[in-house]
Amino acid sequence: MQQAIAVLDSGVGGLTVVKEVMRQLPREKIMYFGDTARTPYGPRPAEEVMRFTREIVDFLIQYQPKMIVIACNTATAVALDDIRSRVDLPVMGVIHPGARAAIGRSKSGVIGVIGTEGTIKSGAYESALRRLSPHVEVVSRTCPAFVPLVEDGNFRSDETFRVVTASLSPLHRVSMDCLILGCTHYPFLSDTISEVMGPDVSLINSAEETAREISTILQESNQLAGRDEVPVHRFFCSGEPWKFQKIAQAWLGQEISLTQIAWHAPHVGA
Amino acid sequence: MQQAIAVLDSGVGGLTVVKEVMRQLPREKIMYFGDTARTPYGPRPAEEVMRFTREIVDFLIQYQPKMIVIACNTATAVALDDIRSRVDLPVMGVIHPGARAAIGRSKSGVIGVIGTEGTIKSGAYESALRRLSPHVEVVSRTCPAFVPLVEDGNFRSDETFRVVTASLSPLHRVSMDCLILGCTHYPFLSDTISEVMGPDVSLINSAEETAREISTILQESNQLAGRDEVPVHRFFCSGEPWKFQKIAQAWLGQEISLTQIAWHAPHVGA
Repeated sequence: MQQAIAVLDSGVGGLTVVKEVMRQLPREKIMYFGDTARTPYGPRPAEEVMRFTREIVDFLIQYQPKMIVIACNTATAVALDDIRSRVDLPVMGVIHPGARAAIGRSKSGVIGVIGTEGTIKSGAYESALRRLSPHVEVVSRTCPAFVPLVEDGNFRSDETFRVVTASLSPLHRVSMDCLILGCTHYPFLSDTISEVMGPDVSLINSAEETAREISTILQESNQLAGRDEVPVHRFFCSGEPWKFQKIAQAWLGQEISLTQIAWHAPHVGA
Repeated sequence: MQQAIAVLDSGVGGLTVVKEVMRQLPREKIMYFGDTARTPYGPRPAEEVMRFTREIVDFLIQYQPKMIVIACNTATAVALDDIRSRVDLPVMGVIHPGARAAIGRSKSGVIGVIGTEGTIKSGAYESALRRLSPHVEVVSRTCPAFVPLVEDGNFRSDETFRVVTASLSPLHRVSMDCLILGCTHYPFLSDTISEVMGPDVSLINSAEETAREISTILQESNQLAGRDEVPVHRFFCSGEPWKFQKIAQAWLGQEISLTQIAWHAPHVGA
């Protein structure tokens, strides 16, 4: 049986990673968990985000995936090291891939990062960027209004444009040439963000970069799906299924098989 | 003592990888071997390229590097699997990173590859691209005149422009949106190649992409250089040192420490 790549997020944001894995690695089987009943993670205390992440990983691990992808920047910032120490599988976060891509792409060495309160407060991007290249200058900003817009499926309305413009206006005073979308929900808004930031700022989509690094790690560890595999994808969410299904199908451009998981119910065979 | 990343090439081409590693991972120590006495590898029989690559790896391994990078597409196509089976270290080639980047970047799914006779004849790019994504269309072309231009330091003359134009003209009939520079020498000519191909074709620099994947692999295996390391780089070549030194210093923008290695002489302490 083909083992899946297990992807988790606070809600629909990690679907941006799923879409890129489907595009860059069309043979891979994917299992996704969106914790829509408890979204957003951004404003929650770190201990709570850690506990939620552990619960979801414990659930996913029952299906014997070959890799765990924490497709949520807030959960990566808080729980990546903890999850790595608890499971005997490759565990990928979404912060290092985005940081690495920004260092590769930036000419000026001035890099912007936008994310949730939890991600920005953790300083995780700043430390990932400096770990690779000590002399980069990092400018960060929280955009707490973005995740609720995306979870509501509100990607391109007048309200979206107003919110994005107001949130990003302080960044115009900084001469960055790269802006990391440091939340997997933000690529849903990337057309608007790009319009507001202008053509001189290159957007780093951490979803796209994470999919690329998943490909690197699977190939180097000789774990890519076989040539004749027909991938089957499976989705779980903890909240109302209809809204998740609608957003997922529109974003991925295909029907999905979705199961709602009520926490505290037995997990196996759910 | 900090362990180095060991990089090898048929000549000066792998310096494009070195430059990108210096930029993306400024803390890493690098050891480089350019086989300038036996360049070019492109037109040589596969068995010979295999033997040369093994000799260089045997030489480099004495210095206890943490990773081997075969920064030559011809040698990667022929010898990557062999070297991987012979040494107990991560061994990176330059073909998978370029292929992966092209799949990430291409919208049309039509991808061009230029390389040496050895690389193109091996079908290594085609098979790497199809391994990841079965439906891409791949158009390949050998450019045997490019490596001698680069080894002579002839990057931007009228002759260069004529040779590049003539070599690439058959590719204009194909509607590709990405062209993989499938030889580490070619980024030396990328301004000219870009001018000839026009703005609608995005060039994939396998050197840049390889440096990025070196970063991914070292970080995931917890082998990045420490925060306080001061990197020292060391260069070896098998041919005339003056020409190598001149090209290397101009390309890297710094003085280098170079040792000429005469093959068949004892290697240790050379």
